[in-house]
Amino acid sequence: MNALSLNSVVLSDDEKELVILDQTLLPCEVKYLHLSKAEDIWEAIYALRVRGAPAIGVAAAYGIYLVSAQLETDDMNAFCDNFRKQKAFLDSARPTAVNLSWALNRMEKVLDENKATLPVADMKKRLLQEAHAIREEDIAISRSIGQLGFELLHHGDGILTHCNAGTLATAKYGTALAPVYVALENGWDDLRVYCDETRPLLQGARLSAFEMQTAGVDTTLLCDNMASLLMKRGKVDIIFVGCDRMAANGDFANKIGTSAVAILAKHYGIPIFTCVPTSTIDLSIATGDEIVIEERKPEEVTETWYAQRMAPEGVKVFNPAFDVTDHTLITGVITEKGIAYPPFDKSFEKLGIKPKEN
Amino acid sequence: MNALSLNSVVLSDDEKELVILDQTLLPCEVKYLHLSKAEDIWEAIYALRVRGAPAIGVAAAYGIYLVSAQLETDDMNAFCDNFRKQKAFLDSARPTAVNLSWALNRMEKVLDENKATLPVADMKKRLLQEAHAIREEDIAISRSIGQLGFELLHHGDGILTHCNAGTLATAKYGTALAPVYVALENGWDDLRVYCDETRPLLQGARLSAFEMQTAGVDTTLLCDNMASLLMKRGKVDIIFVGCDRMAANGDFANKIGTSAVAILAKHYGIPIFTCVPTSTIDLSIATGDEIVIEERKPEEVTETWYAQRMAPEGVKVFNPAFDVTDHTLITGVITEKGIAYPPFDKSFEKLGIKPKEN
Repeated sequence: MNALSLNSVVLSDDEKELVILDQTLLPCEVKYLHLSKAEDIWEAIYALRVRGAPAIGVAAAYGIYLVSAQLETDDMNAFCDNFRKQKAFLDSARPTAVNLSWALNRMEKVLDENKATLPVADMKKRLLQEAHAIREEDIAISRSIGQLGFELLHHGDGILTHCNAGTLATAKYGTALAPVYVALENGWDDLRVYCDETRPLLQGARLSAFEMQTAGVDTTLLCDNMASLLMKRGKVDIIFVGCDRMAANGDFANKIGTSAVAILAKHYGIPIFTCVPTSTIDLSIATGDEIVIEERKPEEVTETWYAQRMAPEGVKVFNPAFDVTDHTLITGVITEKGIAYPPFDKSFEKLGIKPKEN
Repeated sequence: MNALSLNSVVLSDDEKELVILDQTLLPCEVKYLHLSKAEDIWEAIYALRVRGAPAIGVAAAYGIYLVSAQLETDDMNAFCDNFRKQKAFLDSARPTAVNLSWALNRMEKVLDENKATLPVADMKKRLLQEAHAIREEDIAISRSIGQLGFELLHHGDGILTHCNAGTLATAKYGTALAPVYVALENGWDDLRVYCDETRPLLQGARLSAFEMQTAGVDTTLLCDNMASLLMKRGKVDIIFVGCDRMAANGDFANKIGTSAVAILAKHYGIPIFTCVPTSTIDLSIATGDEIVIEERKPEEVTETWYAQRMAPEGVKVFNPAFDVTDHTLITGVITEKGIAYPPFDKSFEKLGIKPKEN
C-alpha cells in the first residue's frame, strides 16, 4: 500500500484543473473535485473542502494560475488586470487564512517582477512554475520535519496526536503526522497511532484516524478525555502536535485541548513535541499571551454532527477554537531546520529563525 | 423558581405508582413515567430511564414494594414466594449495579425479619416504610454533602463539574452538584456552574447542564478539552466531582476524564473535591490499582448520537467508561460525615468510616 495515496491538493496531469480531496465528506466518502472555474475554487476554500494552512496556500497558488491563464490575450495589461481581479476574489474566500493571502501575494510578486520583460505566454509558464515551487517547498518542509521526528522514534512506539496536522492539511506528509509517514517510507510497520477525536469538530476522528488508517497504520481513536488513562497505562511513548502560531518564547496556539494534552504529558513524564514550519514561528510576538483566541458559535457544541440536540436550549457555551500551550510544558519544537530545545528563544536563534519580513 | 423541581424517582401520592423522570429523553423532553407493572419497572432500570446509583436503589426499593404489595393474599408464604420471584426479576435488570442489589437485599431483610410475626397487610406497610427510609436516608446524605461543600464556596464562585452527579442521579440534591442546590436554598444567586460535556455519552451536556439550567443557575457548557483554557483564564474557583468507588487511600474511580480534570486542577492550583457517600468508600481496596475499569463498545464513540458516522469504518477505539484518579491530585473528599483531607486513610478513620459488613 502507498502510505501517501491521499492527495489533498494537486494540479491535474493536463495542468488544466485543480484536484482537491473534498474533506467535508470524510470519513464517509473519498471524492476528488476537479475544479477550473474561479467560483468553484472560491467555494472549495470557503466551504473548507480544502483545509490546513499549507494546503490552502497550494490551492490558492494553483487556483490563481489556472483562472488567470484561462484568459486568451497577448496584452500584458489586460492579463494583469484580470489577475488582480481574480486574486481579490479568491482572497475573499477566507479573509483570516494567512496562507491564502501569502500564496496569492507571492504569485502577484512574480507577476510584478516579470510583467515588463515577459510576453503573456511565458508569464503563464512562470506563474505555473511558482505555484509548483510553493507546493514543492511545502513538501520539502514537511518531509524535513518528518525526518527529524522519525529520528526520535523507536520500533513499537505509541504516538498520540491531537486534531489533524497530517497529509490532509498540507501538500504532503503533514507536520505532526509527518514522522509516521517517514517511518512508513523506511519500512516501519510497528508504530501505533492514537488519535484524540478533538471535539467539537472531530478533526481527529474524521481526518487523522482516517488518513492513518488509509496509510495502513495501527490506529486507535479515543475521546479527548480518555488521553489521561491511555498515558497512565503506558500506551503513549511520544506525542506530536501541530501549531497554528508560535511566539518567540515557544508558547504556541493550536487546536483547543492541546494545552491539556501537554499538561497530562508533563504529569506522566511523556515527551511532547510541537511540529511547526519556521514560517509559523512569529518572533514579533513575545509570549502566547499576545495571541487572540477565536471563539466560535455554540451550535458546534450543542448541535453540529448530531441527529438530535444534545444540550438544553439556550444554555451558554464556551467554545474556543484554540488554546495556548505554555512553552514550559513542551519537550521540543521540531522545525524543518532542526529541533529546538529549551530555552527556545536561544534555540530559535541558533537554528537561524529570524523575524519575518513584512 | 423551585431549584429542585425535578424528581428523578418518587412514589405517587396514592402510593400505587413509581414515578420516574425518563432521562433518556433529556434534554429535549421532560416526561415522567408512571409505572406499576414489574416488566415496566425492569425496563426503566434496564434502559437507563432512571440512572445514578442512589436513584436506582430508590427505584428498586419502591419497585419491589409495589409489585409485591399488588398480590392479594393473607398467606405469608405465598407473599414471600412472590416477593423473592419479583426481587430476582428486578435484580436482573442491571446485574452490575451495586445499589440495585443492595436496596433489594435490604428490603428482603425486612421481609425475613418480620415474616414470622407480622400479618401480610402489616408487612406491606413495613416494606413501604423501609422504601421511604431508603429514599430519605439518601436525601439526608446528599443534603449533608451539599452543606459541607456549600461551606467551601464564596459568592460569585465558578464551579466546574464533570459528568452528572446531580439531583438526577440521586433521590434529591445529588453529590457533586449538592453544594449548588444548598447554596440556592440559602438564597445565593451568583454562582456560575461549568459543565464538561463528558464524551462519549454526554451526561454533562444532556443532564448536568439541563438540571443546573432548570434550577436557574448561570450554566455554561464546554467540551472536555476546553477545561484547561477555562482554568487558565481564572474562571474556575473550585471543582466538585462525583465518585463511583473509592479505595482506602483515597484513589477513586469516576467517569472517564475525571483524572484529567484533577491533573489540570493541580497544574493550575485549583481546589478539587470528590463528593462521595461513605457507603461508596471501600476500605477493603487498598489503592485504585485494584479497581477494574469497564471498557465499552466502540460505537459509542464512532456513531452514537450522530446523524452520520463520524469516524472511519473499522478503526480501533479506546472507550473506557471510567478512570482512576490518584489521591495525590485531590484536595479533599466530602462525605456526609465530614470532609476528609490528606492523608485520607487517617482522615477516613477519624470520620468513623469502617470496612463494610458483607
